[in-house]
Amino acid sequence: MINAFDSFIQKLKPQLISWRRELHQQPELGFLEYQTTYKIGKELEKLGFSIHIGKDAVKSKSRYGVPPKHELQRAETQALDNGVPQEWMDLMKGGHTGLAATWDTKKEGPHLAFRFDIDALPILEASDSDHQPYADKFSSKLEGLMHACGHDGHASIGLGLAHLTAHFKEQLSGKFTFLFQPAEEGGRGAKAMTDLGWLEDVDQFYSGHIGINSLPVGTIAAVTKGFLASSKLNVTFSGQSSHAGMKPEDGRNALLAAATTATQLHAIPRHSEGVSRVNVGKLVAGAGRNIIADSGYLEIETRGESKPINSFMQQEAKRIIQSSASMYDVSVDIEFVGETETITCDDSLIPMIQEHCQHSSWINHIHPVANVSGSEDASFMMNAVQAHGGQATYMLFGTHLPSNHHSPAFDFDEEVLPVALAAYAHVLRGGNTQ
Amino acid sequence: MINAFDSFIQKLKPQLISWRRELHQQPELGFLEYQTTYKIGKELEKLGFSIHIGKDAVKSKSRYGVPPKHELQRAETQALDNGVPQEWMDLMKGGHTGLAATWDTKKEGPHLAFRFDIDALPILEASDSDHQPYADKFSSKLEGLMHACGHDGHASIGLGLAHLTAHFKEQLSGKFTFLFQPAEEGGRGAKAMTDLGWLEDVDQFYSGHIGINSLPVGTIAAVTKGFLASSKLNVTFSGQSSHAGMKPEDGRNALLAAATTATQLHAIPRHSEGVSRVNVGKLVAGAGRNIIADSGYLEIETRGESKPINSFMQQEAKRIIQSSASMYDVSVDIEFVGETETITCDDSLIPMIQEHCQHSSWINHIHPVANVSGSEDASFMMNAVQAHGGQATYMLFGTHLPSNHHSPAFDFDEEVLPVALAAYAHVLRGGNTQ
Amino acid sequence: MINAFDSFIQKLKPQLISWRRELHQQPELGFLEYQTTYKIGKELEKLGFSIHIGKDAVKSKSRYGVPPKHELQRAETQALDNGVPQEWMDLMKGGHTGLAATWDTKKEGPHLAFRFDIDALPILEASDSDHQPYADKFSSKLEGLMHACGHDGHASIGLGLAHLTAHFKEQLSGKFTFLFQPAEEGGRGAKAMTDLGWLEDVDQFYSGHIGINSLPVGTIAAVTKGFLASSKLNVTFSGQSSHAGMKPEDGRNALLAAATTATQLHAIPRHSEGVSRVNVGKLVAGAGRNIIADSGYLEIETRGESKPINSFMQQEAKRIIQSSASMYDVSVDIEFVGETETITCDDSLIPMIQEHCQHSSWINHIHPVANVSGSEDASFMMNAVQAHGGQATYMLFGTHLPSNHHSPAFDFDEEVLPVALAAYAHVLRGGNTQ
Amino acid sequence: MINAFDSFIQKLKPQLISWRRELHQQPELGFLEYQTTYKIGKELEKLGFSIHIGKDAVKSKSRYGVPPKHELQRAETQALDNGVPQEWMDLMKGGHTGLAATWDTKKEGPHLAFRFDIDALPILEASDSDHQPYADKFSSKLEGLMHACGHDGHASIGLGLAHLTAHFKEQLSGKFTFLFQPAEEGGRGAKAMTDLGWLEDVDQFYSGHIGINSLPVGTIAAVTKGFLASSKLNVTFSGQSSHAGMKPEDGRNALLAAATTATQLHAIPRHSEGVSRVNVGKLVAGAGRNIIADSGYLEIETRGESKPINSFMQQEAKRIIQSSASMYDVSVDIEFVGETETITCDDSLIPMIQEHCQHSSWINHIHPVANVSGSEDASFMMNAVQAHGGQATYMLFGTHLPSNHHSPAFDFDEEVLPVALAAYAHVLRGGNTQ
Repeated sequence: MINAFDSFIQKLKPQLISWRRELHQQPELGFLEYQTTYKIGKELEKLGFSIHIGKDAVKSKSRYGVPPKHELQRAETQALDNGVPQEWMDLMKGGHTGLAATWDTKKEGPHLAFRFDIDALPILEASDSDHQPYADKFSSKLEGLMHACGHDGHASIGLGLAHLTAHFKEQLSGKFTFLFQPAEEGGRGAKAMTDLGWLEDVDQFYSGHIGINSLPVGTIAAVTKGFLASSKLNVTFSGQSSHAGMKPEDGRNALLAAATTATQLHAIPRHSEGVSRVNVGKLVAGAGRNIIADSGYLEIETRGESKPINSFMQQEAKRIIQSSASMYDVSVDIEFVGETETITCDDSLIPMIQEHCQHSSWINHIHPVANVSGSEDASFMMNAVQAHGGQATYMLFGTHLPSNHHSPAFDFDEEVLPVALAAYAHVLRGGNTQ
Repeated sequence: MINAFDSFIQKLKPQLISWRRELHQQPELGFLEYQTTYKIGKELEKLGFSIHIGKDAVKSKSRYGVPPKHELQRAETQALDNGVPQEWMDLMKGGHTGLAATWDTKKEGPHLAFRFDIDALPILEASDSDHQPYADKFSSKLEGLMHACGHDGHASIGLGLAHLTAHFKEQLSGKFTFLFQPAEEGGRGAKAMTDLGWLEDVDQFYSGHIGINSLPVGTIAAVTKGFLASSKLNVTFSGQSSHAGMKPEDGRNALLAAATTATQLHAIPRHSEGVSRVNVGKLVAGAGRNIIADSGYLEIETRGESKPINSFMQQEAKRIIQSSASMYDVSVDIEFVGETETITCDDSLIPMIQEHCQHSSWINHIHPVANVSGSEDASFMMNAVQAHGGQATYMLFGTHLPSNHHSPAFDFDEEVLPVALAAYAHVLRGGNTQ
Repeated sequence: MINAFDSFIQKLKPQLISWRRELHQQPELGFLEYQTTYKIGKELEKLGFSIHIGKDAVKSKSRYGVPPKHELQRAETQALDNGVPQEWMDLMKGGHTGLAATWDTKKEGPHLAFRFDIDALPILEASDSDHQPYADKFSSKLEGLMHACGHDGHASIGLGLAHLTAHFKEQLSGKFTFLFQPAEEGGRGAKAMTDLGWLEDVDQFYSGHIGINSLPVGTIAAVTKGFLASSKLNVTFSGQSSHAGMKPEDGRNALLAAATTATQLHAIPRHSEGVSRVNVGKLVAGAGRNIIADSGYLEIETRGESKPINSFMQQEAKRIIQSSASMYDVSVDIEFVGETETITCDDSLIPMIQEHCQHSSWINHIHPVANVSGSEDASFMMNAVQAHGGQATYMLFGTHLPSNHHSPAFDFDEEVLPVALAAYAHVLRGGNTQ
Repeated sequence: MINAFDSFIQKLKPQLISWRRELHQQPELGFLEYQTTYKIGKELEKLGFSIHIGKDAVKSKSRYGVPPKHELQRAETQALDNGVPQEWMDLMKGGHTGLAATWDTKKEGPHLAFRFDIDALPILEASDSDHQPYADKFSSKLEGLMHACGHDGHASIGLGLAHLTAHFKEQLSGKFTFLFQPAEEGGRGAKAMTDLGWLEDVDQFYSGHIGINSLPVGTIAAVTKGFLASSKLNVTFSGQSSHAGMKPEDGRNALLAAATTATQLHAIPRHSEGVSRVNVGKLVAGAGRNIIADSGYLEIETRGESKPINSFMQQEAKRIIQSSASMYDVSVDIEFVGETETITCDDSLIPMIQEHCQHSSWINHIHPVANVSGSEDASFMMNAVQAHGGQATYMLFGTHLPSNHHSPAFDFDEEVLPVALAAYAHVLRGGNTQ
């Protein structure tokens, strides 16, 4: 069986790379993954999975930071233009992207869930010959959008695992749930799948990420530590416009309130009890050069190694935002648009992963633990599984990265794709073959 | 003749209001006034004027701050959709809007030039019942664009003056040039008309503005003092993006450079020798919440009561911009996109205007001088006229304003339209009838 | 009489220069002018004036910004050490400096008041050979204190006018009040003399300043326009100290609140209706490098061309100060420590000054009006005189200045001393000789 | 022997408390500890130690941040007034405080060094009844100075250890060096003792700190992890003063450069590879309210969990400081005034400390390791010992703290004094008795 799985992966490898490159060319932002969802769904339907989309996949009200109407509509029009059928769009429209797929072997066995995130980022992809997607002509076709966090790879691995499940269906037992999650960036989508109950009777939950620089290809980590709790805030200042030359004193300057907030937030004290972060990633203010700006908009994220540290950051941020508003006599609206929790992987899964994966020809070395400092909304799913006594982990799949996550030249070694697939495949095999 | 002119204006008044309201509904930003230019041109052509558009109206290279290609193309597509003929678009495309119209009586007499500005602003119009355009249903049809500086009125007055010229052509002598100027906001269009030579042999130049609150309708000012020299700068910071949670120290934060610039610019010392101004009217930075921003863009304006004061402001601004870049280790590009000069109206025109206008039934009172503190690129035209010995003035036409220039609830009393037309008409009559 | 006055001034000139140089070497800050007051008082007593010092000269409670106890005591000890008698110190102690001197001719005639300010500034005097006081060895003997605003000259002129009054007493009529005012810098002393009633029955009030660059020596201005209303605020932030390495998050940072206030205050919008100013002249915060600072102190001044503009500045400043406190979660105390009002000189004095002064050999030219943009607490005295129907002016006495007022290399041409004395002398003569 | 040591400590306990309270009342800042040094020296001399003071204790040029001359002189005068003999002052004057004392048993055995820091902080001590030093009337007698880091306790423990050494001299072998180090705050004094060679042939080095909240009295930690590398910078901006009302544009504002530096420094990105810190603990700028400030002074500290992280912080700080200078067109001087290194305690000492101390009746529990995040210049001494193959540790002695280190209400439970003494005593006994 080990060899059969490894061989199947070997044959699937060109397809994994091909899927990844197709997805890389067609990046879609969170809750706008209409085409990506359809692409994945069509494939899984063919394989015989039960498919759940739209409000059957995500709880509508539990989504954080759904894009504004005009962005939804633009993406929906493009999806229709690019061949997504009307009946799929009817179910998904309004930002109900993502997909849950289930496979029941009807044989006794544990219920395993696998989660793959599918959204992209608003980054302009690098266009120099050192950047492989550019050199090999599979760069993003959409200016300003990019798979700069490897979710194209994750989705491709998920498709591979689905093929493998279908292929070996006779030998498998138990139940499988595949969650192709929208809007991981910003911690906006996982809660919406979780709140619909997909994790309710899951025994083991697996997710993971490709691309930690310190591990070479072939090396994986069974569990991950260090994910940060985080909060995402959108802040809108509203002031009073005025002619900047003739009546500057009549304006109430929302641009300066936003700018002051940005510089001041970055000066929140470092916390002595653990890692903290704050970032203003986006600032848009004002309308024209000679008008005192009456609007200012910020996208903010706080993080903390523990929930109290993140609460400290969030509370400081709120006071600073409100003080900046008062400083410029403008009003302010603070909207809470996303969050992630901290993650505690089940250490009990370490020996199990080691046992199931150590004989795969794809996997050279299994680290018990790796350390990171990002944030992950898979935390919601993991905490839900653990809440009813299940086990959950978040693995890492090593690969050299030529550039940091979320940077224009981000890329990974595609050799990691079969390795990550092998890791998922063998835990699935180990847990659910008879 | 005085009575004949005044009566003609009385009959034209409903048309003036109608033109104004049509233009108010279809605001176009600077160098995108394709539809406005066509509307004016068609009207003047019918009246028998010689029409000059495209590169015959504006010197292409002398335009400041031409919008980016995609904005030009969007506006061009809309203009074609809304009925502007292809042959007009062929001449105007690429932002060559605006129009020069000439009328030669072939009789001896001075050459008079009149200038009317036609562009709108990126402001979201007020939508409450106190705002007359909203109450009377002639608000801007284009969300986020608005005639918030009265140029809809100016263009309408220009059309009225053209009709009057055509109507009384037999009684008139000398030559007339009508300049319907694009892109006054930001001081971007006047130099382009000036550099093409339209002012070269002009004997008297008249322009003006409706809407100084301290003067009631019926009151005008013959000359204006206090216009500020100004400079317009676009600033682009380029840094390095990075994952804000995992590698904050690898980012070089262009958003913070832009925010710091904004707050610091507003702290340039006040100048003891006269009025100074600085404004950051627009700030756009960053792409996503959890990415260290690698881009930051600012639209800035400095002003000064004299050229040295504006130079001081501009020089301080440059040092602050460069220091902000160095503070965040990002690179910066400073682009010079517009300017206005100071204005010295010819006081010798005061008695002439008083003499020609004082018996008009439309005009109750003529102030010799009014004081303002805006900026005007008519300054380029006026300085060109004065450079070869001509006379130039910038008049003001009183009307109550419910809200400041460049604010969402800006409006004016439409009764000022015939008054302003009367002022232009009688100086035209006084100077060029036999 | 004109010649007699002019000749007397000629003979007094070396003495004027000598007084000025002595005073220049012994600068004293506001409400600490114990030695200066004694020096002047002794001189006037000898001449036969009635002398009023201590609480007979200034209303104790109307003084703004009296220095803290330890500074008062240090200055009092020094004054005693340097020979000021105990009985003078008993009257003056606690910051009751300054002196009012009266002379009653017992003959009918108007009551004239003259005001001379006597305090110095906390500036380290320049020590290079271009600086005349340094080259000629009469620099300040007190490191960090300096007569950098010419009050050494003003006091010297006042002494000269007193000598002249005594010398020509037989020819004079009416009454004279000489006010040697403490603490003009910061607008702290004039109100205290005014509130004691010294201006109550004054018919004409004269004060003035030496040193406006645009006027050469020999030229004076009869009235001055442009003095700004001003407010002086001391601000104290109180936070919470903490170990900056071990518990940064427990600190509440008063240093950053003070720093933020400083940069933000300078960004208050320029006012379109006239000149405005704001300055943070002093900032002291924190105790040690590795302690989060729990204290921050600022000395602030706002100014405005009119009372409403200064009120606007003051109101904006207060909101910014309070918002900065809230931004860093620290408390704040705002203390009001001084003010000046705007000044409207009586234009009716212009022809009178012209008439009385034009034949003096010391005065070459009399400008009716000069423009400045400082602040003056003589405003309190002038407004008090005008309130009961008297006339008041503030004159300017031209002299080249090698460096700005309030700068380390400030100095003036001593030739201005007899000219300014002549101006005062001839208005005194013109108004009050029989 | 264990019992004999413990009993001796029991008898010494009232004396320990008494020394601590005397020192608490007479706090002295770094390099000004003339009286403290003399008090300790006199005591050790009596006991028979060889005493080394002045330039025999510290290498003059290796001292960081020696106070300015006038502060040295004031402290020297006070020391003489308070009874420090002239011959001691002759050796110590100019900031050569601190003391090295040696004891040679002339019997074979290892060379042990103990280090106690003796300086205080510029903090105004709390004066409420909750604060034990205030309630029990042994508060600092010097307003604004305070032992707020427990060095009064450290010095007292050192005196106790010296008494114990003398008392048990017959039973001891090997050599002992006692370093009473000046100027630990700011990382300024340790390098000066180290560079004189005191650690050159030391086999074991012990230092430590009282007061980690998480450990109760009676609990100690054998080694400490987490001390941060740090750099101390003094920054002086020099601009141009000008009259803030009359010529604001002529000033170059050093106060705003300093304020901008402060807020911007606190916004240096958090480093993903470990703990980082930055603090501006002191800011003094400007001279008077209505003068544009020509001077600005800052005391800054950066820290990092590793040398590269601290280097990152220091490099960012320098660029920000220089950019702030350029932003306000002022010059800047950056002076390097102190540093600490990271510390790696020898884990091999853990079992030894456990063995020697576990049977003491004073010590209830010995943690192998404790974590902190301060900085310590004992790092220089430890690194010097380790460089030639010796062993070094930094211990912690638990006690409840009512308030953080470096805060006005800092205090500790005096029961920790005999515990800490016991810890030192038993490692001394364990290592060097025969």
